[in-house]
Amino acid sequence: MPELRKDTVSNRWVIIATDRVRRPNDYVGPVAEKKRGAFCPFDYGNEDKTPPEIFSYREPHSAPNTPGWQVRVIPNKFPVLRVEGELNRRGEGMYDLMDGVGAHEVIIETPEHDKSLADLDSSQVEKVIWTYRTRGLDLKNDIRFEYVLLFKNQGEAAGATIDHSHSQLIATPIVPKRVQEEIQGAKAYYDYKERCVFCDMIRQEIKDKVRVITETRDFISFEPFAPRFPFETWILPKKHSPEFLNITKEESQDLAKILKETLLKIKKALNDPPFNYIIHTAPLRKVEALYTHWHLEIMPKLTKVAGFEWGSGFYINPTPPEDAAKYLQEIDVQ
Amino acid sequence: MPELRKDTVSNRWVIIATDRVRRPNDYVGPVAEKKRGAFCPFDYGNEDKTPPEIFSYREPHSAPNTPGWQVRVIPNKFPVLRVEGELNRRGEGMYDLMDGVGAHEVIIETPEHDKSLADLDSSQVEKVIWTYRTRGLDLKNDIRFEYVLLFKNQGEAAGATIDHSHSQLIATPIVPKRVQEEIQGAKAYYDYKERCVFCDMIRQEIKDKVRVITETRDFISFEPFAPRFPFETWILPKKHSPEFLNITKEESQDLAKILKETLLKIKKALNDPPFNYIIHTAPLRKVEALYTHWHLEIMPKLTKVAGFEWGSGFYINPTPPEDAAKYLQEIDVQ
Repeated sequence: MPELRKDTVSNRWVIIATDRVRRPNDYVGPVAEKKRGAFCPFDYGNEDKTPPEIFSYREPHSAPNTPGWQVRVIPNKFPVLRVEGELNRRGEGMYDLMDGVGAHEVIIETPEHDKSLADLDSSQVEKVIWTYRTRGLDLKNDIRFEYVLLFKNQGEAAGATIDHSHSQLIATPIVPKRVQEEIQGAKAYYDYKERCVFCDMIRQEIKDKVRVITETRDFISFEPFAPRFPFETWILPKKHSPEFLNITKEESQDLAKILKETLLKIKKALNDPPFNYIIHTAPLRKVEALYTHWHLEIMPKLTKVAGFEWGSGFYINPTPPEDAAKYLQEIDVQ
Repeated sequence: MPELRKDTVSNRWVIIATDRVRRPNDYVGPVAEKKRGAFCPFDYGNEDKTPPEIFSYREPHSAPNTPGWQVRVIPNKFPVLRVEGELNRRGEGMYDLMDGVGAHEVIIETPEHDKSLADLDSSQVEKVIWTYRTRGLDLKNDIRFEYVLLFKNQGEAAGATIDHSHSQLIATPIVPKRVQEEIQGAKAYYDYKERCVFCDMIRQEIKDKVRVITETRDFISFEPFAPRFPFETWILPKKHSPEFLNITKEESQDLAKILKETLLKIKKALNDPPFNYIIHTAPLRKVEALYTHWHLEIMPKLTKVAGFEWGSGFYINPTPPEDAAKYLQEIDVQ
């Protein structure tokens, strides 16, 4: 059973993944490069090579775990958290730990091995987004879970171990530290101004016009004023909405458009860089969560995080967001 | 002038390094590999190829910026912060920023190009440590600075851009977020227990014996109970001491021994991995800093930080610290 251990000083939790223990030799030497054309368990026709699917978009009358799907959700074969059991919060002397209970799912975004999310039709991207929502709402029913984290790693440098385009979902039994910090920050701003900090940001970005990449009816994408990374890009719903899971069908269509367009601009500008994106949303069961405003943060992996960043929590960004926005605005993706 | 910009939600500061602006093309394609035997500005005899030295250990009667040195401190040629000027804290609509004032120095640890810190004589490591102290105390006299961060990046994957063994020092005009969090955590523990959290950790580690790597008279090195990374290792003074800069000559001798031994074990166990280390110490001018306990954190760079970590602040560590400690204990470095 994986363990969740708490750092006593920072209250940061760490997952000690006892199911995938790695010894020193596992870290030594270069990782064997995966050959193009090698076997991929996420490919169309290989449905029986993965754990049984939890959810899918598929042709009418096609059976689960057979071809005929457009989007497919499966449990992670090497989950960092396990769905069975109770938390068993306990101490070990001065230290605190609990069992690593949670859900860890993989969303296969397309049957096509060589397409990235940016290459898919906007209607296919919409299916992916609606799948995020469907799985999130289902896991919200499990009262052991406090948060659903939806994210995507693309490219080896961004932590992806499988090339085939996919996202991941991890449901956690506690509200993660970063999420708590974001809510605290939004609440502090609200207490002072009686306004949502993200709504204010949207207003200022639309007025300043120097960091906006693109807008749709319901969404805006821009470079934040203080980005940690070059070409870090955020997508926000224009209407105040704390929880991603409340997205409507119409909004998800619109989000698909802006997400595809933004990713395509980043892909073209930076030669298909590795990246992570993360959906920041309210915890599942906290009233104070209403102060926050869900959004999606895209972080191209172009620089290395080094000692200064680890020691300070400061980031050094060699590309001003105004410059990055200008480059991305000018990229033509029509 | 570099800018310090604050993320309005998380209060995280970011350095927008306007002096080293990088355009999209700078990130595209692989970085040219440096050839062995290529010119190195940190090599013995190349003293005139660096900015003028700020401090050095050198032969009696040898002139600055000439050969004859053992340890040499120079300003960083591409500083992320600039030493001249005032902070000029100001707003830009709802956003906050200030000028990037600070010091950024490089400590060249040895004249020998091919030796890493672990390979040096313990007396040379002691000179490096004493240099950290000397530079830190000097910068403490500049009342614009609130914190001195001492750190080391070794290996390209850990962010080093020059092979020649060196450390860095950055003095910042604000107390970094991570440091504030550590002090808050230590204070919360003290308020509840009336004891230092790090002193308690040392007691429990000595009693449990399952995570300790090695001990000297004044210091202990162990794997923390909740490490973010495989083989993450901490070195702490056994005596409660908030500020690294108060280290005595005798303690620095002893620290040199345990640092060399610990780094050598990591080097042997993991085939000379890239790593970062960071000295965590009290801010220069805060009374509440007395609750903390300075220490050095070594983080081998063996895994990739991906979307889950960025989104949650949770870390996934596939090697339990008890296993890592056992491996390192058994490595013979005599």
